[in-house]
Amino acid sequence: MSDVLKVALLGCGVVGSQVVRLLEEQADDLAARVGARLELAGIAVRRPGRHTDVPAHLLTTDAEALVARDDVDLVVEVIGGIEPTRSLLLTALAGGKSVVSANKALLAEDGATLHDAATRAGVDLYYEAAVAGAIPLLRPLRESLAGDRITRVMGIVNGTTNFILSRMDATGAGFDEALAEATALGYAEADPTADVDGYDAAAKAAILAGLAFHTRVTLSDVYREGIGEVTEADMASARAMDCTIKLLAICERTSPSGDGEKSSVAVRVHPAMIPRSHPLAGVGDAFNAVFVEAEAAGSLMFYGRGAGGAPTASAVLGDLVAVARNRVNGSRGAGESAYADLPLQQMGDVATRYHVALDVADQPGVLASVAGAFADQGVSIQTVRQEGRGDAATLVLVTHTAADAALAKTVDRIAEMPFIRRAASVMRVEGMSSE
Amino acid sequence: MSDVLKVALLGCGVVGSQVVRLLEEQADDLAARVGARLELAGIAVRRPGRHTDVPAHLLTTDAEALVARDDVDLVVEVIGGIEPTRSLLLTALAGGKSVVSANKALLAEDGATLHDAATRAGVDLYYEAAVAGAIPLLRPLRESLAGDRITRVMGIVNGTTNFILSRMDATGAGFDEALAEATALGYAEADPTADVDGYDAAAKAAILAGLAFHTRVTLSDVYREGIGEVTEADMASARAMDCTIKLLAICERTSPSGDGEKSSVAVRVHPAMIPRSHPLAGVGDAFNAVFVEAEAAGSLMFYGRGAGGAPTASAVLGDLVAVARNRVNGSRGAGESAYADLPLQQMGDVATRYHVALDVADQPGVLASVAGAFADQGVSIQTVRQEGRGDAATLVLVTHTAADAALAKTVDRIAEMPFIRRAASVMRVEGMSSE
Repeated sequence: MSDVLKVALLGCGVVGSQVVRLLEEQADDLAARVGARLELAGIAVRRPGRHTDVPAHLLTTDAEALVARDDVDLVVEVIGGIEPTRSLLLTALAGGKSVVSANKALLAEDGATLHDAATRAGVDLYYEAAVAGAIPLLRPLRESLAGDRITRVMGIVNGTTNFILSRMDATGAGFDEALAEATALGYAEADPTADVDGYDAAAKAAILAGLAFHTRVTLSDVYREGIGEVTEADMASARAMDCTIKLLAICERTSPSGDGEKSSVAVRVHPAMIPRSHPLAGVGDAFNAVFVEAEAAGSLMFYGRGAGGAPTASAVLGDLVAVARNRVNGSRGAGESAYADLPLQQMGDVATRYHVALDVADQPGVLASVAGAFADQGVSIQTVRQEGRGDAATLVLVTHTAADAALAKTVDRIAEMPFIRRAASVMRVEGMSSE
Repeated sequence: MSDVLKVALLGCGVVGSQVVRLLEEQADDLAARVGARLELAGIAVRRPGRHTDVPAHLLTTDAEALVARDDVDLVVEVIGGIEPTRSLLLTALAGGKSVVSANKALLAEDGATLHDAATRAGVDLYYEAAVAGAIPLLRPLRESLAGDRITRVMGIVNGTTNFILSRMDATGAGFDEALAEATALGYAEADPTADVDGYDAAAKAAILAGLAFHTRVTLSDVYREGIGEVTEADMASARAMDCTIKLLAICERTSPSGDGEKSSVAVRVHPAMIPRSHPLAGVGDAFNAVFVEAEAAGSLMFYGRGAGGAPTASAVLGDLVAVARNRVNGSRGAGESAYADLPLQQMGDVATRYHVALDVADQPGVLASVAGAFADQGVSIQTVRQEGRGDAATLVLVTHTAADAALAKTVDRIAEMPFIRRAASVMRVEGMSSE
């Protein structure tokens, strides 16, 4: 057993600088937990002059040389992006170094290549910080629930969009106004596309689904809708139903439809109405929360800060202690397990429920025509109510679950009917009891 | 690497029978996750005739012989109690078998002896199921947050008392009536003492504090008050403050009071008022939820089913997969770490806040006398209001934080004042912002 383990840090931004701080402040505690002292071997950055808060002799611009150094035992990556990060991590893994990464984009796009490299080299690849920041979520999924069968993971995993939707709900603001507020407060980046369009949440959903269902899932497998088209009218419709709207990442294992058939996996990110009584409805601001349903454990919820330098660094350090302990013990943690290899379901086949609000001309036969359109697609209606009369009449329907394609097709057909003045709001509904 | 690992099961009640079921139903999945098949070597029970749902040839009444068998690799203990369980587990550990236990009483009373035996033998001792049932909590505390510094753990860890308090809050029922309902529904045992008097929660608090603060804490170190004296008047007082009452397990690391001083640890279980806006206030029925605060991670919450056969078995199996994987890999998981060895604080020194409702004679000078009694003990008052007039006047005070002993002494003194007709409600307050 070595008395010191050398850590190479790739990147020193918001998260990396907190990693440096915690490594220093908690050095004695970390040593007691690991069984060896953790020492920084070097910090790879692009512009050393900008990092005056870390020891200058540790800074280097040559990340490739740093990860290849013989005296480096462990590599922490908080650069993000696909390349050159992937190449750096493959060099590290091939050189027998365990890796801790916070890189959701890379893990969701090409986690398999990294996992394979880690397995070949007999080292660890941990990435708790890639999903839901400080919330311990990946370790519970892949270890605590390893003796159970997970059926569903549903959560709020993007703080920026949750802040925007929470503001729209609380103040009645439109999307643009709420986004501007998020930008002013630093919750949204200058280019908010990755958050607003759901790419960030979709990457996290891919990682969660892979771990939950022991099946490889990549970003391109995830159905994705952002929140850019959520309107004040949608939010008002939600309020009228005693619901709110959240951007949800949903990973489901469907039951086999016939004998001898396999389950399949569906992964999707989209805004949805959820009842205010649902625990996820109360998750405000930039917080994250994830519901997990397992056959034996029942419903579990994990809640906390999904982003930010210190919370993310906490998750990175938890992983670093684990891989360092494994190194000291000459062992390896639980690696990727994709043994189940379940087929992925297309969004059109996924069972969802719709809330549909239609501005209609108040004339005889309207409800019959609309109901007929749902019936034609085999979609059953749970509730229907008409608000107002005459020119201001609105028909509000909530369906039972049906294939998403059938619901989408029904809405398209109804939108073309002559008495429909406007489809005021079409939104999926989640978290409601009853079929 | 062996292709089969043999598991001895001690006990086959509500949890044990679910462990047997899951081991069978998920045999293939478990084998894929472990890297070896898990097979039951035997099941030790007292009365084999009662267990018609498990294979008869596995049943034995000789637990001592079962845990000593050479072909047994892993031992799962769901018997509970102190003896003979401790002796059985010590035999198992000394024989090189890793142990998974759900036994909170034993771990809280004498965890150190078991941990020492596991360390000496180089095997694992896991017990996720001992606290908060299916909720992954111990693994996040000792692994995910291993790079952070936990400052506080506060939670609802006993489902029976939570059910009773939730009913008292919802229906206005008294304690006896709510307990009778809990008994009728199977939420309370025939002898509810361990739950109602807080012993169960205190054992869990001891385990949580030990893991969170890397310090040995036993049941006798935990300050404990049950819910038997919570009255309808207390609940009404809570409602008037927009609060509810929960039985809380609270583990705190205090800040050092001077230079060079160590932090200290305070562990307590008692009913407390918490604001309805606090996430723990919404935890109803027999659910459990635990808040964890760490310096870098911020606030985290874990929520789920705290008891029941299948949820508890899920936690047992998660641990079983972990210790089995370690066995396959020839390694060991993170053991106990009591390196911090922080001193324990007495309840009298713990900083708490009180809510005090006094039925008073409505006469001049009452408030001055009461306020003077608080001031004499150095306790500062945050809010005070008087309700009613004349004979029905009630004075309601909420203090700032102060040493518990000073608060208790103040209340004792006030109760003796001539104009006090009755101390209608005295209750600690938690989870309120502001000092």
